[in-house]
Amino acid sequence: MKRRTRTPDDHNQAEQVAGNGLLHRRALLGTAALGVVGAGLGPNATGAAAEQLVEPPWGLQAGNDTPPYQTPSKFAKNVVRSLSNPKFEPRSSLSRTPHHLLEGATTPNGLHFTINHTGIPDIDPAAHRFLIHGLVKRPLVFTLDSLLRYPLTSRPAFVECGGNSAPLFSPKPIQADLQALHGLASCAEWTGVKLSHLLEECGIDPSAKWFIAEGADAPHLMRSVPLSKGLDDAMIALYQNGEPLMPGNGFPMRLLLPGWEGNLNIKFLRRIKLVTEPAMSFWESQVYTEPMPEGKTGGKAYQFTFINEVKSFITRPSPGLDLKQPGIYEISGIAYSGRGKIAKVMISADGGRSWADAALQAPVMSKAFTRFRLPWRWSGGPVILQSRAWDDQGYYQPTRAEFIAARGELDAVPSVMAFKNHHINAVTSWAVDQHGMVKHAYA
Amino acid sequence: MKRRTRTPDDHNQAEQVAGNGLLHRRALLGTAALGVVGAGLGPNATGAAAEQLVEPPWGLQAGNDTPPYQTPSKFAKNVVRSLSNPKFEPRSSLSRTPHHLLEGATTPNGLHFTINHTGIPDIDPAAHRFLIHGLVKRPLVFTLDSLLRYPLTSRPAFVECGGNSAPLFSPKPIQADLQALHGLASCAEWTGVKLSHLLEECGIDPSAKWFIAEGADAPHLMRSVPLSKGLDDAMIALYQNGEPLMPGNGFPMRLLLPGWEGNLNIKFLRRIKLVTEPAMSFWESQVYTEPMPEGKTGGKAYQFTFINEVKSFITRPSPGLDLKQPGIYEISGIAYSGRGKIAKVMISADGGRSWADAALQAPVMSKAFTRFRLPWRWSGGPVILQSRAWDDQGYYQPTRAEFIAARGELDAVPSVMAFKNHHINAVTSWAVDQHGMVKHAYA
Repeated sequence: MKRRTRTPDDHNQAEQVAGNGLLHRRALLGTAALGVVGAGLGPNATGAAAEQLVEPPWGLQAGNDTPPYQTPSKFAKNVVRSLSNPKFEPRSSLSRTPHHLLEGATTPNGLHFTINHTGIPDIDPAAHRFLIHGLVKRPLVFTLDSLLRYPLTSRPAFVECGGNSAPLFSPKPIQADLQALHGLASCAEWTGVKLSHLLEECGIDPSAKWFIAEGADAPHLMRSVPLSKGLDDAMIALYQNGEPLMPGNGFPMRLLLPGWEGNLNIKFLRRIKLVTEPAMSFWESQVYTEPMPEGKTGGKAYQFTFINEVKSFITRPSPGLDLKQPGIYEISGIAYSGRGKIAKVMISADGGRSWADAALQAPVMSKAFTRFRLPWRWSGGPVILQSRAWDDQGYYQPTRAEFIAARGELDAVPSVMAFKNHHINAVTSWAVDQHGMVKHAYA
Repeated sequence: MKRRTRTPDDHNQAEQVAGNGLLHRRALLGTAALGVVGAGLGPNATGAAAEQLVEPPWGLQAGNDTPPYQTPSKFAKNVVRSLSNPKFEPRSSLSRTPHHLLEGATTPNGLHFTINHTGIPDIDPAAHRFLIHGLVKRPLVFTLDSLLRYPLTSRPAFVECGGNSAPLFSPKPIQADLQALHGLASCAEWTGVKLSHLLEECGIDPSAKWFIAEGADAPHLMRSVPLSKGLDDAMIALYQNGEPLMPGNGFPMRLLLPGWEGNLNIKFLRRIKLVTEPAMSFWESQVYTEPMPEGKTGGKAYQFTFINEVKSFITRPSPGLDLKQPGIYEISGIAYSGRGKIAKVMISADGGRSWADAALQAPVMSKAFTRFRLPWRWSGGPVILQSRAWDDQGYYQPTRAEFIAARGELDAVPSVMAFKNHHINAVTSWAVDQHGMVKHAYA
């Protein structure tokens, strides 16, 4: 209810909290971004501003029809997923979320990333069956209708491919946009049945320690999961942001393992078998392993890296969203941790020499995207922007140097498609040059 | 981590907390909904259940292409909005959210309700201008790009048409589904600039008490809003569930007045003018008024009913989602209040004689949808299901009798399209008959 007037000078006195113009997270921004009426509409605009606004064509004619399922404006046609396989050749198809063009903490269903290895199946939910068997007292078959009679639960959760951010393994920074670098992670509100309910219904044999989950599409993708996760927060997800799952995200049902590597969240789920030990399936033995430094281990690899560790990246500004003039901007980004809630995000505008606390958008939810923001005054010189996140379980995002120290010198990666290296969560750096152009950098 | 086996008998002993089978909100449900493997797959299914599952066609062939913007499965083609004007005649077009087929607390963007009076405009955001003028020190013009340099904020908020639930004014219960009865309310995560930032930037003249907001589409829909709301939680919304606004929801920008009547949340926002008193525009003087009881006031009307009062409805079961057999079901529904957070939802299965507390899905957010759920054992006899909500500001949802006492005997409404009566938030009743058919009822 406060009514006071503000001048550009007020804003110029906003407290700088770290190098190169980072302002306090509660600073209000100045008039740098505004067009004053007089500028666009002539000196007499104040009294008759409305009348002088030109009437655009959409104010003079009837608009378009209302569709049963609405989709974005034709003027938002760049706000789409990028496709790794645009000619739909017989190989895997990856689609990446355009985080640089989104805001908030939700990925809309149309833009949730997908990876499908043999196309997206057209599954008739009335014919789909989901079986729990193996080391259980009573193997049971579930249909979509039968699952809908169980207690449902809803939660936001991010899903991230173990290969997200793989371009950062390149020895030199790959010049690509945020979508290409970090687009294999998305976040939705999922609703479904807790797997623990169904497992208890079946009666778990005490010898069961793992389960194998398998998809119904042609690759029958199969992963081994510790039973403890199945009894913790695992869910058979049926709804995504309120509506039935998208076809590329597992319609009519998928396994959701909040915070765990995307590939484990088996889509088109048709089977869970309780077993005593992991199956060592193709995906866990051949694909989702991370080589260790040669010198330390003789070339061994990590196995079963389940958790997507704490990560963050700045979405705006980012490559392709260049700054047109010096002045005040808001730095905005996404942070998440597969272990819990984001506790803190810090931002640097001087390549890591000084840091400032970003504001976290409430509610901060466990294993979900958290939007962070901080005002920033760009003076027009070159700067390096970075974000770094901490979670509430005591983990923090490593710098690039720390990550290399732990995982060894990073190998060259032939393209952003490479599966070779997984689970990189090092700090991402954006270099802004004196012209306002934003590029991917290592710092 | 508990491992125990459960039998149907366990569940039959679940605590009944109100009449006609309402169970404690933490009761786990029984096996009523399951198919045991033996039933579908023969007596030897336990050992070789997986092998005996028939391989459906989608497990034997490559699937569909990955699109840049994904849309629902062809098997979810009934999960769409219903259209009031399917032939797109030159009149208003209403589309309603299919709440009976959704879950969770988010309305996906494809299914958010819309009302457009002269079609949906195709607005080029690069050419769109938003003006603040009138009783301000400096009138200012904003573009989409300039707004993106201001501090953004995100929040979930429902939007509800003042005419939502209007069929409940009918003296006899209209036999329609939930979508037809309550489909003019939806909830999304909105991201944008707080209007208070922009108003302070312009410098508010102390004589300003109201503002008039106007849309850029052909009807130039215009509403008067108290300035106090503009300085409270009003937002110029730019993103809806993370992506740019949908065309039918106001792309490229809309006024968001959390908790206030949908029509006030001006879409395609082009102008806000600060004034001393309301404009008494067509929409506020002719449409959005509610007649008072004749006897009490001589036929006067309420004016400026801004707030959507606390409301709830059961989404499942509901008309069209009939119960196929006696047994255990989950009752699920949505509650919301334009004044704050939902504090409590109670459910009755005996027409209001006894009530039980439903579980509220966390996080419960102010002026947003809250999902509630409660397990229920249907014995096969006729029952009346009702839900009733309380908010944290001391308001509660009236019974139908209480609502009629306050607003007078309800008039006949010729169709579910009627604009005549607005803002009805009385308890909704579903009658389940002995065959499991669900119908709209008054009780």
